[in-house]
Amino acid sequence: MALTYEVFRGSPEGKIVSDKVSSDLEYNEVFIETLVSGVCGTDEHYLKTSQVLGHEGVGIIKAIGPGVRTVKIGDRVGFGFTHGICARCDNCAKDMDQYCREKKQYGTNDFNNGSFSYGAIWDANCVFRIPDEIETAHAAPLMCAGATVWTVLTRFDMRPGDRVGIQGVGGLGHLAIKLAAAMGYHVVVLSSSEAKRQEAMEYGASEYHVFRAESPLQSFKPLKHLLLCGSANVKYSSILPLMDSPSAIYPLTATFELSPIPTLELCLKGCKIQGSLVASRQSIQALLEFAAKKQIHPTIMTFPFTSAGIEEAMNQLRNGMVRYRAVLIRET
Amino acid sequence: MALTYEVFRGSPEGKIVSDKVSSDLEYNEVFIETLVSGVCGTDEHYLKTSQVLGHEGVGIIKAIGPGVRTVKIGDRVGFGFTHGICARCDNCAKDMDQYCREKKQYGTNDFNNGSFSYGAIWDANCVFRIPDEIETAHAAPLMCAGATVWTVLTRFDMRPGDRVGIQGVGGLGHLAIKLAAAMGYHVVVLSSSEAKRQEAMEYGASEYHVFRAESPLQSFKPLKHLLLCGSANVKYSSILPLMDSPSAIYPLTATFELSPIPTLELCLKGCKIQGSLVASRQSIQALLEFAAKKQIHPTIMTFPFTSAGIEEAMNQLRNGMVRYRAVLIRET
Repeated sequence: MALTYEVFRGSPEGKIVSDKVSSDLEYNEVFIETLVSGVCGTDEHYLKTSQVLGHEGVGIIKAIGPGVRTVKIGDRVGFGFTHGICARCDNCAKDMDQYCREKKQYGTNDFNNGSFSYGAIWDANCVFRIPDEIETAHAAPLMCAGATVWTVLTRFDMRPGDRVGIQGVGGLGHLAIKLAAAMGYHVVVLSSSEAKRQEAMEYGASEYHVFRAESPLQSFKPLKHLLLCGSANVKYSSILPLMDSPSAIYPLTATFELSPIPTLELCLKGCKIQGSLVASRQSIQALLEFAAKKQIHPTIMTFPFTSAGIEEAMNQLRNGMVRYRAVLIRET
Repeated sequence: MALTYEVFRGSPEGKIVSDKVSSDLEYNEVFIETLVSGVCGTDEHYLKTSQVLGHEGVGIIKAIGPGVRTVKIGDRVGFGFTHGICARCDNCAKDMDQYCREKKQYGTNDFNNGSFSYGAIWDANCVFRIPDEIETAHAAPLMCAGATVWTVLTRFDMRPGDRVGIQGVGGLGHLAIKLAAAMGYHVVVLSSSEAKRQEAMEYGASEYHVFRAESPLQSFKPLKHLLLCGSANVKYSSILPLMDSPSAIYPLTATFELSPIPTLELCLKGCKIQGSLVASRQSIQALLEFAAKKQIHPTIMTFPFTSAGIEEAMNQLRNGMVRYRAVLIRET
């Protein structure tokens, strides 16, 4: 059974172009009619390729392959990073989705299958039923931004009461504040200006510091953990004085540039730089349950789910105007 | 009671100069007559200061302060990094010696109190009785080189059977091979040439690979852990392809330069760069017991414990001629 659906691709000129793709539904796959998609800074990296962009989708299952048992037609599901091929290997089933993607297994299939689309075909094991308590538009940013910070906040030995720093109040950062506060961490926000103080405190921050590399913080109590959620390249030599011993820094914003890191300072503090990418399936499921129970949702701005709407959302994101996650909403 | 003893300092010209210092013995301090000292690459960093160099000492306790209960006159003890002032703070008593040193508490006192000396005054809590099974000259390199790799090999969730890489077969690396093999790890040595293959295998390596940044290894099975023990700055972008997911890299060689690190690659692999410095008191004690029981000792070259002997040892170390740790032996 071939399914045909509209998708939105990047292009060498940086315009969003619509296209149609057709594909068969395999044994354990589902066809999702996309309702909404979040817009992530990472989409920018692929804007000039012909890839179908987007990886924060939520939609309704409209068809299922013969082997599908875990979801059914009519289910409202989220999808994004965890992927079909990926889901079939042992590493994903454990906690290691990034492994497969790193081996390009993700990339090959995803070229035609992002969430900037009116439809997507996905492995049934890698879609996530959205709890009723969560609105569709609010669920989308949990698929990447939420899942990325959730993984770090739950996987690396943080304890309630720990001083957990969040640098950068954006798509990832604002969700990290809300989630970390709900976990009982002492949330310390570092932002480059005063602009977001009030909102950060409302989201659950205990401290808010204006921090720029050139002006060190005075009498700052060190951090056990620091999530780097800012869009710019950070200066590690200015961040390390903020860290406790031992402690951990998590660079969560994708950068293709090399980061100059003072490894001796890392050693003197017993500090680590811990890489982490998005989330395993169990992790996304756990996030959805937690968000539903604790009534945590992203703060979003909505845009039309059209070529023009995508371009406008990406443009506002590029210019730092999004408070705090752009979500494309399809007219139905 | 003022004690006077001979010490060897660096100097702006890079010569080793002997000097005499006098100091009182405080409440919980001991006076150690130094018998031997290891020579570490880090000594080079301080050669042009007037600091008393050396931090791998072993000697005999000749006098004790009135509060000393843990050791007695005549004991053969090792001393080095863990330090008097340091030992009195909570962080040291736990597992965090590096914290205090980072705050310069180590530096202040140590200026007159390295192990390139015929005597040293040390806090009784920071000297370590050497088990009878270990020869004096063999004990010295355990104080820094051994303790540094021991901490990494025991503290960061390595499991028997794990593929543990050791890059660089020198003072730290050769001890890391011996210790890691005795812990049941699968030891994978990376060296820049074939020269040390036979010895590395005799020390317990399971694999030996000639590895240079410019020529990637073919069909290499990835590493869960990698200890960077080489003297040169490593190229992280050439090392990351060797790493498993998740995995950890431990930069153990002190470098004052910034290391360009591809944080995106770290994220894709779920890899961390874990800083670690030398060892806590408990850790050094545990190493001494393990080394005694498993009959593990460093492979050493000996030099006279004189200004000329120190210069010669440092010169040979500088030129990569030491196999694998230089130890100064005092004529008695």
